[in-house]
Amino acid sequence: MPGPAELQLNRDGNLRHLLTTEGLSRELITSLLDTADGFRSAQGQPVKKVPLLRGKTVVNLFFENSTRTRTTFDIAAHRLSADVVTLDIRTSSASKGETLFDTLKNLEAMQADLFVVRHSAGGAPFFIADRVTPHIAVVNAGDGTHAHPTQALLDLMTIRQHKGDPNNLSVAIVGDLRHSRVARSLIHGLRAMQCPDIRAIAPGTLLPNDLADLGVRTFHRIEEGLSGVDVIVLLRLQKERMIAGLLPSEREFFKLYGMTEDRLRLAKSDAIVMHPGPINRGVEIANEVADGPQAVILNQVTNGIAVRMAVMAMTISTQQADALCRL
Amino acid sequence: MPGPAELQLNRDGNLRHLLTTEGLSRELITSLLDTADGFRSAQGQPVKKVPLLRGKTVVNLFFENSTRTRTTFDIAAHRLSADVVTLDIRTSSASKGETLFDTLKNLEAMQADLFVVRHSAGGAPFFIADRVTPHIAVVNAGDGTHAHPTQALLDLMTIRQHKGDPNNLSVAIVGDLRHSRVARSLIHGLRAMQCPDIRAIAPGTLLPNDLADLGVRTFHRIEEGLSGVDVIVLLRLQKERMIAGLLPSEREFFKLYGMTEDRLRLAKSDAIVMHPGPINRGVEIANEVADGPQAVILNQVTNGIAVRMAVMAMTISTQQADALCRL
Amino acid sequence: MPGPAELQLNRDGNLRHLLTTEGLSRELITSLLDTADGFRSAQGQPVKKVPLLRGKTVVNLFFENSTRTRTTFDIAAHRLSADVVTLDIRTSSASKGETLFDTLKNLEAMQADLFVVRHSAGGAPFFIADRVTPHIAVVNAGDGTHAHPTQALLDLMTIRQHKGDPNNLSVAIVGDLRHSRVARSLIHGLRAMQCPDIRAIAPGTLLPNDLADLGVRTFHRIEEGLSGVDVIVLLRLQKERMIAGLLPSEREFFKLYGMTEDRLRLAKSDAIVMHPGPINRGVEIANEVADGPQAVILNQVTNGIAVRMAVMAMTISTQQADALCRL
Repeated sequence: MPGPAELQLNRDGNLRHLLTTEGLSRELITSLLDTADGFRSAQGQPVKKVPLLRGKTVVNLFFENSTRTRTTFDIAAHRLSADVVTLDIRTSSASKGETLFDTLKNLEAMQADLFVVRHSAGGAPFFIADRVTPHIAVVNAGDGTHAHPTQALLDLMTIRQHKGDPNNLSVAIVGDLRHSRVARSLIHGLRAMQCPDIRAIAPGTLLPNDLADLGVRTFHRIEEGLSGVDVIVLLRLQKERMIAGLLPSEREFFKLYGMTEDRLRLAKSDAIVMHPGPINRGVEIANEVADGPQAVILNQVTNGIAVRMAVMAMTISTQQADALCRL
Repeated sequence: MPGPAELQLNRDGNLRHLLTTEGLSRELITSLLDTADGFRSAQGQPVKKVPLLRGKTVVNLFFENSTRTRTTFDIAAHRLSADVVTLDIRTSSASKGETLFDTLKNLEAMQADLFVVRHSAGGAPFFIADRVTPHIAVVNAGDGTHAHPTQALLDLMTIRQHKGDPNNLSVAIVGDLRHSRVARSLIHGLRAMQCPDIRAIAPGTLLPNDLADLGVRTFHRIEEGLSGVDVIVLLRLQKERMIAGLLPSEREFFKLYGMTEDRLRLAKSDAIVMHPGPINRGVEIANEVADGPQAVILNQVTNGIAVRMAVMAMTISTQQADALCRL
Repeated sequence: MPGPAELQLNRDGNLRHLLTTEGLSRELITSLLDTADGFRSAQGQPVKKVPLLRGKTVVNLFFENSTRTRTTFDIAAHRLSADVVTLDIRTSSASKGETLFDTLKNLEAMQADLFVVRHSAGGAPFFIADRVTPHIAVVNAGDGTHAHPTQALLDLMTIRQHKGDPNNLSVAIVGDLRHSRVARSLIHGLRAMQCPDIRAIAPGTLLPNDLADLGVRTFHRIEEGLSGVDVIVLLRLQKERMIAGLLPSEREFFKLYGMTEDRLRLAKSDAIVMHPGPINRGVEIANEVADGPQAVILNQVTNGIAVRMAVMAMTISTQQADALCRL
């Protein structure tokens, strides 16, 4: 049985779903980012809309609530001229005892073209992609602690924009990597882009076990880990984790791992600071850094729209080409 | 005072609201289904959207929650290029003590073109249609146990597609007919289409009293009722009814009335199985039948979009023609 | 530091935000109303939609719930062909501890073009307009007891339509002026339009202290205040105020200040009766007046769409012209 990495590509290696950054080739990622760059420049125009997906139906399937991510997908879909339907899972037929499988089959029958799936369980978007009819594209908008591929792609887009090709860069990821789908997807993406130096900075309790296999070097002391890096990626501290005793207090975290101006000076002088948002000021990041010239956090947000447009356009276009071939 | 059947037609017999299938002529239903067939084939095109209702405002007035039905109306409106406004009745002015009448007058003043009305009280869409200004079309999306005319029309469309003209068919409806607006609307629709053999299959407690007047034959034993039919329509078991003691347990219901492969063999060999959804697997229908070749349940969903497009397009077009005449 | 009145105009005196009617010139208001008149006549056309804001993104930021006002802004945005994103503040990142400032910066980065802001705190839209990047227009959809400028503009539009230039009219405002943003914004608007006779009718506990400074004459007895006026503006009785003991009972209020046919006869014979809605029948207004020929309450609703279209079109157009100048 094929896994997500195989399922998301068609026979010709084109992207028909986006489930994970794992297994994506440098060429495919580069082509996605080039497309996103194009959409990004169009965003500066008076009319930000292109008719690429006119008449297509995008369905938001958010089993886990996330206003921000849903909003960026909504805006991306609108700017491609697609129609958007949001299914409120809590009040939908799922709550009337219908199986997920039957809900999906119904949405298919309504001739949806793309599902944006967010789920608290890792693997849910893959489960869905594996069961939908061939003509529907599935985009993973975050599944459990597993993957968040559009976030990783917008991170790569931002890195490339500010620092050039990742195959020449040192990237440090700081914080709770163990529970972070953002970190996991970014690491796979950076590896695909042949990034030679990926570092993880966190206390031992917040580091996953497989980092060495992924070629990631680990650091417990932030001062060591930041030395000479080009890119710093801060992760959001999930407060729920602290309750579980896995994390120190916010104050303690900031003292040990918070990004301050002093610590920033340990990196290269033109290093950039990234964060998937929403930021916790005074926890992961000091105000001076968040509002300083090296932070590119808001630029990540802008790139997020362009990357999601590129992913939607590319997956639907693969599905359409494949549908023609099946005729 | 005219009833729903009269109110929904203008002087020339054209459809200006859709409140009930009762009193619709064979000609009018045929014309609606022909229009829906046209929209259905357009759904296979890369661009599924037509500019027919561009600039029109469709208002969803869902006094009773129904994600699925609302979604199908939303998609239908989008594919006609209309704008959709959904009024959350729970947080709207109605909760500020405004009368329904005043809420309607306000929506009229915002120049809405069509109201999609779902209400737990039978007759509510008629009440509304009777009070709105002439230029607004009202479509009943289900009112109490009274009517669900778009469901009946999509059922007729599905029957016609698979089995041809209903004037030649035997149709069996199975389950809680007493509380079912779906059954009631379908029976009126089948009668209008001159269906010669309509059967109701249920225990006595779940049969309405007026079936004989409607020309429907009743059966308590499913084995008898299914004999030689062309079309089987299963109704959804409303779990709320069971609490009221009107229904046996789910297990008991399935044993007595569940659609199994064995029972399906009693019908004609090319009989189709329909269900308004969402289905309860193992209650009204066995997995083997739900996923088998004779089930056309998902095709009903696809037809539902096309039928709702046809109803919206036709009612608004009548309203527009009438408005021109009033000039 | 400039206040709302200065901040909402650019150097050339054009409207780049709409925060308050205070300080708007007669010329600017007239130009807004003329634009709204144009949109209003377009609403009678079969296609009510104009492509003026195609590809623009309007974000609803409703910190205080108001289905009706949000619906009118939604419809106005759709009729200008803009895309609308509604941020559910209760479930958004704000609830994850993100500061309002950071939420705004994120929406900016998504290249929103206009924020529609409703907030229970007076001054919130000004706070936001003061902090957003220059290219985003902010429209105040009601802030605390401070201002509700689009309501005032639609009131002025309705007055002008029925009674001509306000510089020739007597206008009486009846009810809880003390807690009413509607009254405050309308008084500023009427003064800008050089209305020579503005009257406030209410018990002393419901009158603000600064009416004399605003040139408004106060009346405690409605019979005196209505004498010979051209326009009567009723305010909605906020039931929450009664709980605080500031208002008499509903029955008492109606007895003392309710608009009855008898009282209406005290005004000019062609006087109009206005109300921002939703109306409380039998509290502020008798049924006979609400449904009578002198009430123009529903016409206010229709004008509300046109005025909001004009405000959105004009502010975004100023922002675009300014952006070109900054190039």
